[in-house]
Parts: sequence; structure tokens; C-alpha cells
Amino acid sequence: MERDAYKEAGVDIDAAMQTKRSIKDMVKSTFGPEVLTDIGAFGGLFKPDFAGIQNPVLVSSADGVGTKLKVAYLTCRHDTVGADIVNHCCNDILVMGARPLFFLDYLAYSRHDDDVVGAIISGIAKACKANNCALIGGEMAELPDMYNPGEYDLAGVIVGVVGEQDILDGSNVVEGDVILGLASTGLHTNGYTLARKLVFKDAGLSPDDTIPGTDRTAADALLAVHRSYVPSLLPLLKNTGLHALAHITGGGFPGNINRSLPGSLDAVINLDSWEAPPLFRFLADVGKLSEYELYRTFNMGVGMTLTVSENEAGASAAVRSVPGMVSSGEFVYEIGRVEPGHGEVHLVHGC
Amino acid sequence: MERDAYKEAGVDIDAAMQTKRSIKDMVKSTFGPEVLTDIGAFGGLFKPDFAGIQNPVLVSSADGVGTKLKVAYLTCRHDTVGADIVNHCCNDILVMGARPLFFLDYLAYSRHDDDVVGAIISGIAKACKANNCALIGGEMAELPDMYNPGEYDLAGVIVGVVGEQDILDGSNVVEGDVILGLASTGLHTNGYTLARKLVFKDAGLSPDDTIPGTDRTAADALLAVHRSYVPSLLPLLKNTGLHALAHITGGGFPGNINRSLPGSLDAVINLDSWEAPPLFRFLADVGKLSEYELYRTFNMGVGMTLTVSENEAGASAAVRSVPGMVSSGEFVYEIGRVEPGHGEVHLVHGC
Repeated sequence: MERDAYKEAGVDIDAAMQTKRSIKDMVKSTFGPEVLTDIGAFGGLFKPDFAGIQNPVLVSSADGVGTKLKVAYLTCRHDTVGADIVNHCCNDILVMGARPLFFLDYLAYSRHDDDVVGAIISGIAKACKANNCALIGGEMAELPDMYNPGEYDLAGVIVGVVGEQDILDGSNVVEGDVILGLASTGLHTNGYTLARKLVFKDAGLSPDDTIPGTDRTAADALLAVHRSYVPSLLPLLKNTGLHALAHITGGGFPGNINRSLPGSLDAVINLDSWEAPPLFRFLADVGKLSEYELYRTFNMGVGMTLTVSENEAGASAAVRSVPGMVSSGEFVYEIGRVEPGHGEVHLVHGC
Repeated sequence: MERDAYKEAGVDIDAAMQTKRSIKDMVKSTFGPEVLTDIGAFGGLFKPDFAGIQNPVLVSSADGVGTKLKVAYLTCRHDTVGADIVNHCCNDILVMGARPLFFLDYLAYSRHDDDVVGAIISGIAKACKANNCALIGGEMAELPDMYNPGEYDLAGVIVGVVGEQDILDGSNVVEGDVILGLASTGLHTNGYTLARKLVFKDAGLSPDDTIPGTDRTAADALLAVHRSYVPSLLPLLKNTGLHALAHITGGGFPGNINRSLPGSLDAVINLDSWEAPPLFRFLADVGKLSEYELYRTFNMGVGMTLTVSENEAGASAAVRSVPGMVSSGEFVYEIGRVEPGHGEVHLVHGC
């Protein structure tokens, strides 16, 4: 048998090739007719069908799962983080008005483990399918002395498309617009370095302990999948009453709603207009966090905001009437208003 | 002053925002008229100009720098790894016949360091400019307990375009084709886990020690930038005598040339047809590596292969006559032939 110095140094090429073969069917299940390549080519080939899109503009975004992955290591649950990164990326281009076309992942780890990698890629593939985008490429890298044993990092890039005239850039936002909030499923993928410290260190909980005030374990609460708003909001994108969207991720309310505002307007968010879910109230209590810290770090139960016309009474109603939006747990809150200002976000109590 | 619990937990949002402002001009210098967004949007907007491209197909690829980064940490030289990842990705889609459109990076680190991040992004931006592609997006993630202090990971995704009829997929390769090799600048970005073990551990060299048989230090030799073949090869892509390209990366000769072969043909590579540079001979000696291990792990001085028509005598000549190709150090070797077979790569001595 051939000696394998590379394997002795910590990199097992054959094991990675084996996994690539075993995930092939999952990955191919995300391919529509626009995908021309099989798996294993140097690059993924995607022949876009832009019929019906005037002046197509490609919209792309890169993101990582962050230290939510630490909860996955801790609990040995690796089948949800794939959906976290896909959904996060899809939401980021959705807020520009784009629908997803294809996704590529980057997965780097200390040591190749067929089961772990299989679970992660399976999660990515399922989420790609749910968002109607092709998992067209990716990189799996065995980096033995860069990651701790049993650990990995996971990131991804989405590419989507929008017609130039349909780009949502906040330029249609006007004074008096209403800001709606759509419920999140949990922390989504941000604030985990602080949340893990509060839950596991300061409060001293174990992953199987119930989060006080909730009926969920710390593991379940912290691994709740970052939801995709694509299925709910794609049908609304051409509604002229929809003026802007903001994905509440790193930077929270002040760091994201501002990105969907013209420089002459402010967003005034009434913190009394919805009740932050118990998980967030627990984190606030344990960390004795100020309101500003909370709303700049966490989504506080609102993962996406919509800025809609007050005058077109239909817009808000349309949001509320998207088939299945409320019945599927897509709670909609009216959380704020657009006022004259300087592109800032104000957090207030009462109207 | 507002208390900052997130910063106390290890994530400094303000420092990252400061760096984002300071790299803005570098990033914007890569933007052509196709880029519609400024920096800081949820997604990057790229309005492609596909004039002159029949049936445009998007070609994408993801990759990481791998443990070459360990050499960057060791030497505190962070201004070259950006070009490594950009050039690697550009080469990967070049071999499908595509030219780059835009690039997105993923940079994750233990602790935000303005100088280090600035050097890395500056390297990425310069390489994007040199490859004529826009640095349209990216993610910087501070993940304090996932990376060792002073360490980071760097990956990227490229998106390019090729006309459907111009896709290079190896289907034009025929028996008798000649395989040419273009010189690499060093290890490029693969084999570093083994190479670092051989250089620093087994041979006991320090970064400032000269690699025996060469006039370069270990640091210089191991950090030599992964070259882009885009400037040299883009003008050749429509030459009908060019049948296939292969980027010699992870998997070496057997793991890459095979990807550019039809299933009924083999590539026979004559290892006597070029001399592996002294760095590779040093690695072979220290590690007592078999020939198969060497050529499956390292590029051995050849970073790109071209499969060209034997009959169209012009093809090989065209490759050799690309302006500046040889004079700029782009050495071209005739390294093999295409023979009947089963899609395999054979490493032989003599003709």
C-alpha cells in the first residue's frame, strides 16, 4: 500500500472524495434546468433564464454562521446550521428585491468527519431547495491546525437577480410610512458570542436545561433555525406599497433599518408595540443589558422589517394577507413610523 | 459612556465599522460601471454587460487559502494572502473558459485588528483590479473563541461569465492532443499542511532561513503569491486549437487534469519534460516522498495545463506567442500527450 505523507500530516484527500460522492444526490436535487454542470467541475455553470426580467441585475451577498456553530459542536447537532447560512444569505438579497439563483458554501474543519460533513451539507441542500436556489458549488477544506478538534467554520455566498426598476433601495420610502415587523424564530445567526456567555457561563445552564420562562431547552432555543422570509415575501416584492425591507442581523435595529432609509428620514420604532419573546427577556435579565445593547445586538423577536405606504392602505393589508403568513406563524407587528430626520433609527416607548 | 456587553464578550462592532470605512476607497477602486451599489448595502448589485456574449452562462467557484495562512501568521505578512484567494478563484473559472465578473470574500478572525484586516482586504482589492473583477461584497466576522489569537481564515467566491458555445469542458479533447504546462510561482495554495511540516518541523528551518538549493527564505518561498493565469490566457480562450485547461490545485496532477478529459482518453504526463523547481526537490528530499505523493499533492512547478491540438500547429505556437507570456516568466513546457484510455492521468518517465 502506498504511503500517504499528506494524510500523516493531517489531510485525508480520499475521505473527502468519499464524502463528495455520498452527498452528490442531495446536491443534485437542488439543480433546476438552469444548472449545466455536474458536481466536481472546476466551476459551477448556471445558464440564467431572465425571461420576464427587464435589465436583470445580479445581487450577491456573503455571510457566515458565526459562533452559533459553537452550540452545534456542544450539542453534536449539525443538521440545522446549513439552513442558517442559506436562509441568512437569501434574506440579505431578498431585502434588495432579489430572488435567489444559486448558492456556494465554504466549510472548513479540523478533521474530515463523514457524518458531520454529511449532516451540514444535507442541511444546506434542503434549505437551497426550499428557497428555490441551486447549490452550485462549495469548498470543503481540512485545516488540521487552524481549527480546534471537532470544530468547523461555515460560510456562504448567494447570487440572485432583480430587475433594475424593481430594486428595493429605500428611495421610495416617504414620511408617514408604516414599519411592520415579521417574527423571528429566535436569535437567527447573530449575537451568539454574547448569548452563549449569558446562557452557559453567567446563568450556568447546560444545553439540556430549560431556558427559564420558556418551554425549550437551551440547545433547542439557541439552535432554532434562522428563518427564510423568501417564501412569504417573494409574492409581495412587486407590490408598489412595499417601500423597503431590512433584515435584522448583526447591528440589530439601529444597524440595519438605517440601511433602508433615505438620508432625510428617520425610523421611529416603538418598543412597546410588540413583546420580545421570553428568550430575549431572559438574556436581558441575566446580562442586565441596557435597551440600546439589546436592540443593537439581538433581533428581539423581529427578524425582518417592512416599510410600507400609509396611503396605500392595501400594502399593510397585503402583507397581512399573504397566504399562510399569519397562520404559518408569520406574526406581523406594526412597530414604527417614518419621520423627517437624518437617516437614523430611534428606539422609543409609546407613540 | 454606554456600557458595551457585546464588546466585553469579545465582539467589537465599532472597530469593524471603522475598518469598513477605511477600506472603502480600496474596494471602490475595483468597481466598474457594472456595479450599482455603494459599500454597506445588504447585497452587492452588478448589472452585467453581456453584449457580444451569446447565451451567457454564469460560472462560479468557492475556495479558501488553506494553511498557507499559517505562514502569514508566523511571519506577520498579511498583504499577499488576498491575492492568493482571488487568483485561485479566477483560475478555477478561467479553466471553464470564463472571465471574472465579481468576487466576494469571507474573512473570519479571533480579534479585529485594523492593520491586519486592512492588509488582507488591500491584497484582495489589488488582485481583483488586476483580474478586472469587482470586489462586490464580503463578510468580516469576529469569532473570538473559534480562532486562535492572531489567526484568521480567508475564503472567497468568484462569479464570471462565458458564452455557452465557448465553455471549455474537455469535450473537444482528442487523441494526439499535446499537453502544455505553464510555470507556477511556488506552491500556490495547496499542500501547505504537508509543506509546513516538512520545512518547519522535519527540516527545522525558521522563516528567515534560506531554503537549501534556492536563494529564497522559507517565508518568501512559502508566501509566493498564487499567480493568476487570467491576463495570459484570456486572449487565447477563443482559439479553436485550445481544447482544455486544468488548474493544478488540491489533488495535484492526477486530481485535476482528469477533470478536463473525456472518459475515453488518458493524459500521459512525462515527468522528465520539465525540471521541478528546487523548492519542490527540497520538499521531496526532506519528506522522502514518493513520486505519486509529490505529484498528487503539489503542482511541482506547473500551475496550469493546456490541452492543445496537435494538428492545428498554430495552437501551441499561439500559446507560446501570447504577448509577454515567456518574457514575463510565463515558462511553457510541453509535458504530455492525450492517448486512448479511461479518463485517467498517467505519470511516466520518457516518451
